[in-house]
Amino acid sequence: MQNFEFHNPTRVIFGVGQIASLAKHIPSDARVLMLYGGGSIKTNGTYDEVRAALAGHTVLEFAGIEPNPKYETLMQAVELIHREKIDFLLAVGGGSVVDGTKFVAAAAAYDGDAWDILKIGGKVIKAALPFGAVLTLPATGSEMNSASVISRAETQEKRAFMSPHVYPRFSVLDPAKTLTLPLRQVGNGVVDAFVHTTEQYLTYPANAPVQDRFAEGLLQTLVELGPQVLARPDDVEVRANIMWSATMALNGLIGVGVPQDWATHMIGHELTALFGLDHAQTLAIVLPGILQIRREAKRGKLLQYAERVWGLKNGTEDERIDAAIGNTRAFFEQMGVPTRLSGYGLGPEAIDATVAAVEAAGLTGLGEHRDITPADVRKALQLSL
Amino acid sequence: MQNFEFHNPTRVIFGVGQIASLAKHIPSDARVLMLYGGGSIKTNGTYDEVRAALAGHTVLEFAGIEPNPKYETLMQAVELIHREKIDFLLAVGGGSVVDGTKFVAAAAAYDGDAWDILKIGGKVIKAALPFGAVLTLPATGSEMNSASVISRAETQEKRAFMSPHVYPRFSVLDPAKTLTLPLRQVGNGVVDAFVHTTEQYLTYPANAPVQDRFAEGLLQTLVELGPQVLARPDDVEVRANIMWSATMALNGLIGVGVPQDWATHMIGHELTALFGLDHAQTLAIVLPGILQIRREAKRGKLLQYAERVWGLKNGTEDERIDAAIGNTRAFFEQMGVPTRLSGYGLGPEAIDATVAAVEAAGLTGLGEHRDITPADVRKALQLSL
Repeated sequence: MQNFEFHNPTRVIFGVGQIASLAKHIPSDARVLMLYGGGSIKTNGTYDEVRAALAGHTVLEFAGIEPNPKYETLMQAVELIHREKIDFLLAVGGGSVVDGTKFVAAAAAYDGDAWDILKIGGKVIKAALPFGAVLTLPATGSEMNSASVISRAETQEKRAFMSPHVYPRFSVLDPAKTLTLPLRQVGNGVVDAFVHTTEQYLTYPANAPVQDRFAEGLLQTLVELGPQVLARPDDVEVRANIMWSATMALNGLIGVGVPQDWATHMIGHELTALFGLDHAQTLAIVLPGILQIRREAKRGKLLQYAERVWGLKNGTEDERIDAAIGNTRAFFEQMGVPTRLSGYGLGPEAIDATVAAVEAAGLTGLGEHRDITPADVRKALQLSL
Repeated sequence: MQNFEFHNPTRVIFGVGQIASLAKHIPSDARVLMLYGGGSIKTNGTYDEVRAALAGHTVLEFAGIEPNPKYETLMQAVELIHREKIDFLLAVGGGSVVDGTKFVAAAAAYDGDAWDILKIGGKVIKAALPFGAVLTLPATGSEMNSASVISRAETQEKRAFMSPHVYPRFSVLDPAKTLTLPLRQVGNGVVDAFVHTTEQYLTYPANAPVQDRFAEGLLQTLVELGPQVLARPDDVEVRANIMWSATMALNGLIGVGVPQDWATHMIGHELTALFGLDHAQTLAIVLPGILQIRREAKRGKLLQYAERVWGLKNGTEDERIDAAIGNTRAFFEQMGVPTRLSGYGLGPEAIDATVAAVEAAGLTGLGEHRDITPADVRKALQLSL
């Protein structure tokens, strides 16, 4: 195990009906800006519940944060914050709204060109407005971490930043608020949480049994509950456990003291930027190919994954690895997320464009060994044509 | 899964050599009181490392916090704090020192009779001095939670309190500092962490698969590493993983949203108060008997425990439960912690005294169903004569 620091100060308020307790977590004299996306929080009742819970507060609104939240949109929120002297933010929505709110919180408190936060990185952030979140889509883990991914429309860039200043003060996780999600978003969320876990687990053995067992526990839970949520979409208990799995998959805990990969995410971001695919769709395409081309470097953990997550104990090592990767692909497909470019109407030209984008972004040393090249990216994607 | 709140603001700084980074986590102008126990931190080098790391700070000392830390001793530290205008505490030692420091931190900031904190409970605490910890004995989890257990010599009472004000600001966990522990404390620590986990896991099924898998992962890790630490006491990697297991076993995470038992701890506290047994020794005596007498109420989870932690899949349900309880007892014995009263020179009269103490303390409804009576306590202890 490597040395590490772990500090996650976000308060999680979990369960059906918990939105009603919102007011006690926000200073009563705060000028609150509620940030959200499209209209889904209005049709599923979340909007009304939040407004009712904050009836005693001064609340302004900023709507229209899009999936893969855009710098250009978010800067309008920053302007509103300055104009209206807002001092507390409340994100209401999924990971994109929470990610967007993190950027807004940091940009509003930043002296200088806010693009620095994405160009130079989170280390330029010295302060941020305090904010909380009400989560409606379990997937990204943004509700309990300090990371954010923002896109710039103008330049088709997708950039991530991290800063300890952008942990949410609190996040309310009410699984009932996820019951009305379209199945596509449900499947995406399960795949996203699954791949967050593999990025921190499927690397090389690092003698970290607690982190391994926790990661395997999350993967087993997602494999078990994924089909259940499709079969019984009204089962709020299934929703609750998926929601908690997704939070735990990316709140930093399973990644302490272990090597991390993230090649799948980095390549996936380029696919989203180029073709507008959902984030989870890109992960479902990229991961199986990456596991195949990295099977030697990842052999020890792939075998452990095969046995502990998929119960594969028979056959040669290579047969077990193939079966585990095959099961992973089949699981994503079962969740309604195609794992091949052809499933999205894309062909070999998409590979050319992605490899070019990877090169242009200078992503020449990806993965836990920092040695995945653009040529490797091509090989991985060719396995998912 | 039940509704819950989870908020754990302690910063963990983990790994060999991390004591050197202490200074940056304590305000430079703080007047620090370093609290510790006996001399072990002086013989194993921890004392010197801490003093060197805090060379630029004003540091006073309070030594002599005993195992099962005593109210009478701790109140002397409170007096010193007031006299010397101390504003930051640093616990250096094991769970007793950390527990004691929590009480001191709260008592020093309390207006009124500090015994209230133990008599009425942590809810009387409205503030506490800030403090950090340097852990030298992995066992109690106190380094990353808000609980503390304090004894009063005068009245032979052992009382617990919890308060969000007594989370350590930070805890430094250097596994190298545990290499010189006597084997008795090593075994105790593993048993303590194991039983912390079972108290939150071996209850009844609550549809909380993530919490279950995490708890099982900790138990599996302890079962795997316990014999290794005895066989290779110089292996700092084994120490590191045991240390992290013990922290994760009682930092609140595996207990969110699930029923909890704690009968074994409550009964064990009486055994310590009466006979001076180590905390873990009492747990090793009590747990196997409690599992036996509660086998019907705990049947579902005992079967899950048998299969997932001990790999027991054959035989009748009752055979698997018996085997799992037997394995648990054998594991504790293997760790050098006797599981029978006779192992400590105690006989049936000790049971009479413990049952009387349980009655006197009004502990008439213990366990996750709050229905364990003093007569049940007698039955459980008779199975560990």
